[in-house]
Amino acid sequence: MNREEPSLSLVWETLTGYQRTAVLKAAIELDVFSKIAAGAATCEALAMQCQAAPRGMRALLNHLVMDGFLTRDGETYRLSPTAATFLDRSSPAYLGSAAGFIASPMILEGFTRLTDAVRRGGSAVPNDATLAPEHPVWVEFARSMAPLASMTAVLLANLLDIEHAPACKVLDIAAGHGMFGITLARLHSGVQVTALDWQNVLAVADEHARAAGVADRFHTLPGSALEVPFGDGYDLVLLPNFLHHFDPPTCERLLAKSRGALAPGGRVVIVEFVPNDDRSGPADAVRFGLVMLAGTPAGDAYTFAEYQTMLRNAGFEPPALHELPPSPARVVIATR
Amino acid sequence: MNREEPSLSLVWETLTGYQRTAVLKAAIELDVFSKIAAGAATCEALAMQCQAAPRGMRALLNHLVMDGFLTRDGETYRLSPTAATFLDRSSPAYLGSAAGFIASPMILEGFTRLTDAVRRGGSAVPNDATLAPEHPVWVEFARSMAPLASMTAVLLANLLDIEHAPACKVLDIAAGHGMFGITLARLHSGVQVTALDWQNVLAVADEHARAAGVADRFHTLPGSALEVPFGDGYDLVLLPNFLHHFDPPTCERLLAKSRGALAPGGRVVIVEFVPNDDRSGPADAVRFGLVMLAGTPAGDAYTFAEYQTMLRNAGFEPPALHELPPSPARVVIATR
Repeated sequence: MNREEPSLSLVWETLTGYQRTAVLKAAIELDVFSKIAAGAATCEALAMQCQAAPRGMRALLNHLVMDGFLTRDGETYRLSPTAATFLDRSSPAYLGSAAGFIASPMILEGFTRLTDAVRRGGSAVPNDATLAPEHPVWVEFARSMAPLASMTAVLLANLLDIEHAPACKVLDIAAGHGMFGITLARLHSGVQVTALDWQNVLAVADEHARAAGVADRFHTLPGSALEVPFGDGYDLVLLPNFLHHFDPPTCERLLAKSRGALAPGGRVVIVEFVPNDDRSGPADAVRFGLVMLAGTPAGDAYTFAEYQTMLRNAGFEPPALHELPPSPARVVIATR
Repeated sequence: MNREEPSLSLVWETLTGYQRTAVLKAAIELDVFSKIAAGAATCEALAMQCQAAPRGMRALLNHLVMDGFLTRDGETYRLSPTAATFLDRSSPAYLGSAAGFIASPMILEGFTRLTDAVRRGGSAVPNDATLAPEHPVWVEFARSMAPLASMTAVLLANLLDIEHAPACKVLDIAAGHGMFGITLARLHSGVQVTALDWQNVLAVADEHARAAGVADRFHTLPGSALEVPFGDGYDLVLLPNFLHHFDPPTCERLLAKSRGALAPGGRVVIVEFVPNDDRSGPADAVRFGLVMLAGTPAGDAYTFAEYQTMLRNAGFEPPALHELPPSPARVVIATR
């Protein structure tokens, strides 16, 4: 888009952005993409297979063509390359389930009250909504986000060169789906993982560990990361997508506690959206700061400079910042 | 975007589209753009002037930079050409108010229940929600959409060549803001307008007629277009963005009733999003079909072929389809 010229389309497309979200979410919920991949090609066939009204299906399909997820030739609909890769359940890169979390009613609620959140400088949704013990949203998170996290976890394992690392003991804090620790264990038979999260969330991680064939090296530690003792002697403490929920003093407490659980020479590994120090980019990381404003009392997408300060205050050596291309995630690693 | 290659960004951007909507709506509600236009340039100044927390304002501003509405140079924020033209209240082309309708809680509700709407083939929101007498959403519509409608109304007046037309009598059905009829009256002192809508909505149209200096030629007819008698002897009957709410039999009833109100040689003028006959485009019109699915029991974005059938059944001569560039609206005109 040429940003030198005023664009009414930009205003219109932004104001109707929620419509495209809802359309994609509905299509995923109705499993339209998998049905097309399996051979249903017309509106009538899809309406029947998805148990939808032909009139509703027609409106949905034609919108999806406009949005780049389908192509259409006469009355025949086909998947675009994007949909074939990421939205067909039988694709190894399927991540349609992410809609269940990214566009969940709970996350949406924070955004329906965004003006208030900007006014007060924190979520306008009642305070510890998502931080309450055993909140079901984290079960949804663990199920929905596992496919996307798996891709990032492989990139992280490569960064850590886990396949050539010595046997090691890993603590995965707020493990959720568990995919970060599980992926390390899957790629190195000498890795022992302890996953910490709420008991109801760990049940999902347990399923994933069994599916990955690492259940015998996957241990669980139920409870709040702020309260339950971590144990000690870990070579790696993973903090994937967790510190963003909290204010800096709480992050520092969690980091100091993590440091106390590390063996000498052990490292903390923080996986996050990390904006540049002046928050001028990258786009996904800058935008994520607002997601935290909308949904948490005092969380943020922290910059590397902010992590440097927090890690120093927690007693760590100076950290390093790593990219994880093509993922927008970044990794901050510091040694005890 | 190259749609030949699978794009994870397309999935991510679509699933987070509602976030960009919420950000723009919050910025409009806080009047961030007008404050910047008036000279506030830093996060601190804007937080103070918009009565917001600096932390909230910072997250909002940086998101707006990513979205193309602001530019940033160090700690100084400026309006992009798009924001300067359309989102600063002091700009003649201001249309930020449209957020109040396009992203209103009521319209959003239909989309939170879109999967159900696709299943049943019509809105999953209780049936005559928006079609109930004096529903306040149409007052919001009349206030919010007046600026955008004004731009379209001028294009329509040009299409009708109103400035060179003889004196005429115009009925504006479901007038809302009233801008279609008001604009014709503003451009031709021989135009008499009768605006039909709910009484509470007509109060807004009355304000607009006074502001345009045409109050003495602006008459009102309160009530439901389905029930109130239209009168007769009109040269033009306008149906701007109204038929899309109804099923074809109801549209035909409204058209036959409109025809009965026309003088010999009189014309009905339908302003709508009109998709191509196979609903393969244009994008805004195809997408609008889904907006109707989400929000109405049996409405639609009708094709020109469908309007041809409805108009023929209502007794009209064969209609003509007109474009209104650069607006996405199209116009269907048929003679009695």
